[in-house]
Amino acid sequence: MAFNNPLVSDRNVGFLLYEVFDVEALCRLPAYAEHTRETFDLVLSNARKFARDVIFPTYKPMDGEPARLENGGIKVHPTMKALYPKLVEQGTVAATRPYEVGGQQLPHTVASLSALYGMAANLSAVGYLGLTAGAAHLIEAFGDDELRSTMMTRMYSGEWTGTMALTEPQAGSSLTDVKTRATPTPHGHYIVQGNKVFISGGDHDLTANIVHLALARIDGAPPGIRGVSLFAIPKKRLEGGKLVPNDVHCAGAFHKMGWRGIPSIALNFGENGDCHGWLVGQPHRGIAHMFQMMNEARLMIGMNAIATASVAYHEALEYARTRPQGRPLGSKDPALPQVPIVEHADVRRMLLRQKAIVEGALSLGVQTARYADVAAHGETPEQRRRALLLLDMMTPVVKSFPAEKGFEANVLAVQVHGGYGYTSEYLPEAWLRDQKLNSIHEGTTCMHSMDLLGRKVLADQGAALRMLGEEIASAVARASAAGVSADLTAAVDRAAGVVGDLTMHLAGLGMGGKVDEMMRHSVDYLDLFSTVAVAWQWLLQAAVAREGLAASRGPAAFYEGKLCAAEYWIRTELPRIDHLASLCRGGEDSYARMAPEWF
Amino acid sequence: MAFNNPLVSDRNVGFLLYEVFDVEALCRLPAYAEHTRETFDLVLSNARKFARDVIFPTYKPMDGEPARLENGGIKVHPTMKALYPKLVEQGTVAATRPYEVGGQQLPHTVASLSALYGMAANLSAVGYLGLTAGAAHLIEAFGDDELRSTMMTRMYSGEWTGTMALTEPQAGSSLTDVKTRATPTPHGHYIVQGNKVFISGGDHDLTANIVHLALARIDGAPPGIRGVSLFAIPKKRLEGGKLVPNDVHCAGAFHKMGWRGIPSIALNFGENGDCHGWLVGQPHRGIAHMFQMMNEARLMIGMNAIATASVAYHEALEYARTRPQGRPLGSKDPALPQVPIVEHADVRRMLLRQKAIVEGALSLGVQTARYADVAAHGETPEQRRRALLLLDMMTPVVKSFPAEKGFEANVLAVQVHGGYGYTSEYLPEAWLRDQKLNSIHEGTTCMHSMDLLGRKVLADQGAALRMLGEEIASAVARASAAGVSADLTAAVDRAAGVVGDLTMHLAGLGMGGKVDEMMRHSVDYLDLFSTVAVAWQWLLQAAVAREGLAASRGPAAFYEGKLCAAEYWIRTELPRIDHLASLCRGGEDSYARMAPEWF
Repeated sequence: MAFNNPLVSDRNVGFLLYEVFDVEALCRLPAYAEHTRETFDLVLSNARKFARDVIFPTYKPMDGEPARLENGGIKVHPTMKALYPKLVEQGTVAATRPYEVGGQQLPHTVASLSALYGMAANLSAVGYLGLTAGAAHLIEAFGDDELRSTMMTRMYSGEWTGTMALTEPQAGSSLTDVKTRATPTPHGHYIVQGNKVFISGGDHDLTANIVHLALARIDGAPPGIRGVSLFAIPKKRLEGGKLVPNDVHCAGAFHKMGWRGIPSIALNFGENGDCHGWLVGQPHRGIAHMFQMMNEARLMIGMNAIATASVAYHEALEYARTRPQGRPLGSKDPALPQVPIVEHADVRRMLLRQKAIVEGALSLGVQTARYADVAAHGETPEQRRRALLLLDMMTPVVKSFPAEKGFEANVLAVQVHGGYGYTSEYLPEAWLRDQKLNSIHEGTTCMHSMDLLGRKVLADQGAALRMLGEEIASAVARASAAGVSADLTAAVDRAAGVVGDLTMHLAGLGMGGKVDEMMRHSVDYLDLFSTVAVAWQWLLQAAVAREGLAASRGPAAFYEGKLCAAEYWIRTELPRIDHLASLCRGGEDSYARMAPEWF
Repeated sequence: MAFNNPLVSDRNVGFLLYEVFDVEALCRLPAYAEHTRETFDLVLSNARKFARDVIFPTYKPMDGEPARLENGGIKVHPTMKALYPKLVEQGTVAATRPYEVGGQQLPHTVASLSALYGMAANLSAVGYLGLTAGAAHLIEAFGDDELRSTMMTRMYSGEWTGTMALTEPQAGSSLTDVKTRATPTPHGHYIVQGNKVFISGGDHDLTANIVHLALARIDGAPPGIRGVSLFAIPKKRLEGGKLVPNDVHCAGAFHKMGWRGIPSIALNFGENGDCHGWLVGQPHRGIAHMFQMMNEARLMIGMNAIATASVAYHEALEYARTRPQGRPLGSKDPALPQVPIVEHADVRRMLLRQKAIVEGALSLGVQTARYADVAAHGETPEQRRRALLLLDMMTPVVKSFPAEKGFEANVLAVQVHGGYGYTSEYLPEAWLRDQKLNSIHEGTTCMHSMDLLGRKVLADQGAALRMLGEEIASAVARASAAGVSADLTAAVDRAAGVVGDLTMHLAGLGMGGKVDEMMRHSVDYLDLFSTVAVAWQWLLQAAVAREGLAASRGPAAFYEGKLCAAEYWIRTELPRIDHLASLCRGGEDSYARMAPEWF
């Protein structure tokens, strides 16, 4: 390919960081005092150069030849073996962690954007590191000193990798039904026995060891979710300074339609009764602890989904600008040359929709990363509490919206490429295959809709939702002041009211004992909520674009594109919420009534 | 797999043929006089048994190992080689053709349903025959006696296969720009030189010969679409009763994300100046002639899309009925057994949506096939004209709706399977990959939207649209008489009005010279039109279901399911048309204004 796909728009990253979300303000917080715009820019320019020059060329070979099971172990692609040490050298595993554990104490706002380039370049390759970071952070947060010094340190340095091992064959998403057993011993460790499935990076030949952060039940634990504990279970254990096998076995590899550079495997613990596991945190509090990693993973999946839609969008844009075909409507003279397909209205529709999804979702992702930074390091308890509530509420949205609408964007990127888009001579079909997983792993879209409606928007007597209303009102005010069209500000303002009223109504149903009715259209509610949240972000971007135009901050074309995309989303997509609200509110009940034998 | 996927619901096929569309009435037409319900049932029962027992087992191996290019020729999968003679033996190539050319003179209404089973079992495998049928029919309709006796007969018998060879590398969908040249000789044939791409079944080792029905320009022909002629260009030509190479070369195979059992290739004619082609029909009338095959192919693609969504729907339904996971809302007691996931409201939503798409599209497809039968063999010229107008208008809808919404159904089938759905240990991911092509080949969705809005609904001063209004009114009356809920009949009745008013408005724009404005939201118009057409079909099915319940025609569950699906579509999906109509009417112009450099 002669075209160098930028993966992610640098101009847009700068716009979000410095014009929309004023990331420099974070440097005034003590935790980020050693950072400046210059250090952020250095991180970003390293990340984008590395992603473009080193990571991206590994994508196609790894998609073509997945990691494979050989003699009971996973062999990764030779390209991945060569890439791994270079990835580790970038120091991204502990990027956001404190200096004292070897991290760079980088704000998530910046780290999530610098990570985006690598995800867009090869989401499987960077997946090993993302999982390791989350697993090590669990040990950092809940493990004892012994686990921190033996395991966490090696994981943050990339010497070992980590996984999350939750799912079991009989349980799937139902963690209540986890059956893996842990029997205490007098030596501090437990003997573990059980089976896990869909463990990403669960085996490989990249590093000397892998630490599985796994859920299991201590003998005699209460049934259900409150009897599940968190364990660190290494593939090999340290005995006398040496790594010896820990009775952890790869029982098979799944053949996935995408994410083909990182294996997903079935894992058996303790086939021979000799699998040692170490308790992380409190007994029976495993789910509560694991939520730290699950929430991080959810935001990471959201960013993966944005990255996967972004790289495909840029590919489609370049194709549309350079592929001549057909002539404008009403100008059929075959003597005239054909025009690039970007000249056709429907091709521009498909491109603008991709842009609106990618850049709308990314703005929401960065907004949420900023909440994470303030939640951890904000100046006052009230600021931290507010940011934490907003972070929690936005997590299911940032996970699901990019997965669902990002998939639609990936489908459009294939469509823009026409017949070529359906072939593996071009990359969009591979990105489409990758994207599909994001609505499934780390909780399906339905599960996140239930998390949002059943828990998050109701938390703290609806405080998070009220705060969101305030945030939207402030964006509306900024947009009005900047001179954004009144129909756009009015539409977003009104949409915030629709969300509030609908949520009150549904909460009322729930409190009246009609939980089924409340939750019946939870997926429609999530769709509505996400559409409004993204409209809020587009209004905010439109406000900043108007400000940028007024101040002549650089070329106008970028800002004009932002305004056009904001108009597209708010005028074309946002109006869908009325129908969605009426479905949620009216409780249209066809599928509730549909008996299994009627299908 | 222990589960025997039925591919297509037999009960539903019987419902459509005998309860909804009264196919027995066709037997009163002279062309179909030799048929009876018994012969139809025999055709259907052979087709479904053969599809389930013989074709379906070939699907997974052929998806796993695509046909490959070897020494300049395509080698198909050994399974396909073994299957081909059995497929030919079924006699489907000429099923709808007259007795005098070796056909069975079967109504399309029946043939399209019997073909559906094979398509659902392995769309690539039956693709060879579908293309051959369309190519042979071109020769039957426009070829001279020589071509009919040498080529058509061998193609209808399956001894040779056929293709359609339109697309060229520089032209894509823009047939105006076809460059392949044909130079007349005094011997009746032409010397052809040119390059084609994306030729499905363009080479293989299944039969002794392949006849390409190709577009080319005769030397000196006028530029543009009116200078393109239709040729039959065999891979090998008959000389002295022997087949000799005809300078037709496979220049490469595309690696497709789906449809992996049938190759799509680049084809070179006349690399050595010795490629003979025979004119089919009138010089310069190639596009007009080719439209016969293109229209047949479009309806076939629509049925392929329905079949691909159908087989995945049945797989998802079985999975949902048998996979235990989780417990009902508000009943979290881990001591209770888990329930099959079909018990969860959102899983039922995903299944009902699949059913509504599959069976709604199929009903529209059968309706359209019936128009094709009446258009060809109706009693009076007026009946034939009416049916032809409706057939023409519905063709872009039957091609596009199943491709677009069928893809959504295939995505839902993956989602119902959760993590397993993302693996090739299960089949839904393969069907998802297959389905994606259907919005691209035989004209993209955008092209069909322009065909519908720019030509079909306006044809004959809007006669087709008026007739559709009458058809919908008659379904509304039947539904009212049968006791279908008044809100459903009123909604469909009103929707027909929305289509009519909107079309008048847009036609007015076009006549006022504002063609860009008229066509700007053509894809939204197609979406709206299709949604209404499918709502019409669901209302019709609901009417017949009510009649069936009232008459106690068999088990109630089937009819209850039909009523529920009709309610789902009309209450949940149909209301989207108001927003779509307002986009079309208001001409929301963000992407029209979006300059290529603003992205």
